[in-house]
Amino acid sequence: GFGRFGVVYDDAAGTDITYLEQRFQLDVVGTTETDNGLTVGGRYRLRSEEDKAGNDAGAPGYVRQTKAGTVNAAQMFIQSGGLELSVGNVQYALDSMANLAVGNIGLQNFTSFLDGPGYASRGASPTGLALTYAMGGLNAHLSYDTEAQATDAYVSYDFAGYTFGVGGQDSDAYTTDWVVAVGGTVGTATFNASYVNDGTNGTGGVGGGYAVAAHFDVASGLTVGGYLTYFDSDTAGVDSATGLGVDASYALGGGVNLVGGIYGTDDDKTEADFGINFRF
Amino acid sequence: GFGRFGVVYDDAAGTDITYLEQRFQLDVVGTTETDNGLTVGGRYRLRSEEDKAGNDAGAPGYVRQTKAGTVNAAQMFIQSGGLELSVGNVQYALDSMANLAVGNIGLQNFTSFLDGPGYASRGASPTGLALTYAMGGLNAHLSYDTEAQATDAYVSYDFAGYTFGVGGQDSDAYTTDWVVAVGGTVGTATFNASYVNDGTNGTGGVGGGYAVAAHFDVASGLTVGGYLTYFDSDTAGVDSATGLGVDASYALGGGVNLVGGIYGTDDDKTEADFGINFRF
Amino acid sequence: GFGRFGVVYDDAAGTDITYLEQRFQLDVVGTTETDNGLTVGGRYRLRSEEDKAGNDAGAPGYVRQTKAGTVNAAQMFIQSGGLELSVGNVQYALDSMANLAVGNIGLQNFTSFLDGPGYASRGASPTGLALTYAMGGLNAHLSYDTEAQATDAYVSYDFAGYTFGVGGQDSDAYTTDWVVAVGGTVGTATFNASYVNDGTNGTGGVGGGYAVAAHFDVASGLTVGGYLTYFDSDTAGVDSATGLGVDASYALGGGVNLVGGIYGTDDDKTEADFGINFRF
Repeated sequence: GFGRFGVVYDDAAGTDITYLEQRFQLDVVGTTETDNGLTVGGRYRLRSEEDKAGNDAGAPGYVRQTKAGTVNAAQMFIQSGGLELSVGNVQYALDSMANLAVGNIGLQNFTSFLDGPGYASRGASPTGLALTYAMGGLNAHLSYDTEAQATDAYVSYDFAGYTFGVGGQDSDAYTTDWVVAVGGTVGTATFNASYVNDGTNGTGGVGGGYAVAAHFDVASGLTVGGYLTYFDSDTAGVDSATGLGVDASYALGGGVNLVGGIYGTDDDKTEADFGINFRF
Repeated sequence: GFGRFGVVYDDAAGTDITYLEQRFQLDVVGTTETDNGLTVGGRYRLRSEEDKAGNDAGAPGYVRQTKAGTVNAAQMFIQSGGLELSVGNVQYALDSMANLAVGNIGLQNFTSFLDGPGYASRGASPTGLALTYAMGGLNAHLSYDTEAQATDAYVSYDFAGYTFGVGGQDSDAYTTDWVVAVGGTVGTATFNASYVNDGTNGTGGVGGGYAVAAHFDVASGLTVGGYLTYFDSDTAGVDSATGLGVDASYALGGGVNLVGGIYGTDDDKTEADFGINFRF
Repeated sequence: GFGRFGVVYDDAAGTDITYLEQRFQLDVVGTTETDNGLTVGGRYRLRSEEDKAGNDAGAPGYVRQTKAGTVNAAQMFIQSGGLELSVGNVQYALDSMANLAVGNIGLQNFTSFLDGPGYASRGASPTGLALTYAMGGLNAHLSYDTEAQATDAYVSYDFAGYTFGVGGQDSDAYTTDWVVAVGGTVGTATFNASYVNDGTNGTGGVGGGYAVAAHFDVASGLTVGGYLTYFDSDTAGVDSATGLGVDASYALGGGVNLVGGIYGTDDDKTEADFGINFRF
């Protein structure tokens, strides 16, 4: 399972709000094994989270509630060695591709240029099919969302300490067309860099997104990260934007971390947070 | 727990649909024991399943979603030896009676002529009371649905390798009046046969249903089943109908099976499926 | 986990109803521990219960259903020795204060004069923050409901076999202003006594509630309780009322008890019940 909570300041919506961020999720897995070694099973996720809005009880739209946990749509799977077939609420290829998103900046700011289907941590989901394969340094993932009729796939390979990946999507519902990503370790720093292209899919031609992140172990248990993003707009009336973020994480042991971060873009959006996360 | 998934072809609704069938359920039980040996406890079932409709994204009513799992209404029970009292979301007598339904044909085609209350695997349920008793070859089950005010009961007895059962229902909400069922083993085959009578209950006089099923172990792990049903209509404007089905199941070990089947009736309904099911 | 079921007779609503009471709840907790000994985790409660109304299928508003279990809003916590910080669906101070309510009379009649926020056993909850501290005989609890913007707190101390507590609340949404409570053991009897004052909070000036309860072990496994309450109305048109209750509980071992009780007030309300409860 996983949990996190903390304080978030967000002016992305044009008005400043400060709220108590929360997420608690518990994964339940049931499996069995056939005589010839296939693992067959299914999994649920129970997630509760904050239901935020507005800033103060006097403000319009003010809400300060914690959502009830939901049992999400199940994922079932058959696995044999590095090959796995899953159905239902599956993991989708581009959403699972390493190094494609810069990851969480601070406690909860998940910044990504990807527009595609994803695993639903709460409630119902599209019905999907996914096939993943891992062998040595090779990873491949093919997935299909039967509701949006979206197909996406990626292949990545580990070479000389770096992981190179390329992926694509065919869909009328989502804009992302193709992606490339690379990641690895240089000295004491880990980095990742990616490009997400919005091509002929969906409404099409929205633009492209570049992202670079680097993490440094600066002291025992303390990690500092830096993030740089650029959205290159192809759409009239939508501005290109540069984003810059920094964060820090201090490991308390047992999977518990104190984390804080700040991320801003030059079209005047800023989000900062501080809190704790834990895996159990 | 239990899970299954596979492909289903169904023209029962007049229009052909093909869909990905899914069901994943996880049973959670909590019990304690009194000093004099009573077991007292309760159970939940978490089930997620497909939410199908239509055939293709262009068709009206098209849906391809996986429903969120729900925690169903609880069943609580007190058990002592072969005697058990349960309350809440209980198992009802006729719905639990051995040999009454032919069972699943293939992956998911559950064919039954019974009209009565049943255990709710998802969501809320009527509040019920049930009393079951098992002693030697004797099984008895009495249940009451407090919402529909329906009472049903059965008694069965094992004799010379066969199980004979008879049951009845008193209800304004459900049509089934009385039932008989028998099952057993002849050589390498197991069989069951049953009759369900719609008498004076409910809207009454709908008709009666006959069902026979036989299963043969044809090879190591492979079982083949044959099914024959006949609905004898007592209602003007509703035709009598004969149904015929075959299926096959191949055990992979660990509770995992590959299964497929086909079932059709002479009023032009056909359902065929193929997939995998597993217990864990 | 916890469960109970039984029969309840209630004429509190002016019309007599008799119904099958039910509650089944299962608590799920996930925790981890940091290197310096902090426990960090979260918890869910899954509760199903009866959905009662009316008395008989012919009566208006008749319902006899068992509600689906829900995963409630999560509570997350950080704990170190006797100090605990929790967020989300927290326990509130006055609602947790020992000896303040007389407790359940019989199976399910929970009688309390407190008006304040509480832990939500089903569904969503206000987002709360709570800080509790326990050291030797000292217990302190401070909590804040961010939605109702209600703050409450109590301090209690164990002294010479008795526990003395005092608490208060500041809120526009709830009427309780301050409370005092004491409890302890005298010979073979345990007792508690409390006063709840409705002062300047909320709509204000509703009145005050006095409650006394005593429990006696009259034989092996058998406990008898007596309850006396007095509501001193400050509101025109609302009568003061005296309540009197008795109950009995017989322990079957393993956390299972047979319980029954009756509670009535002199404004002509009576509630009686009999059933079983169990912890597992």
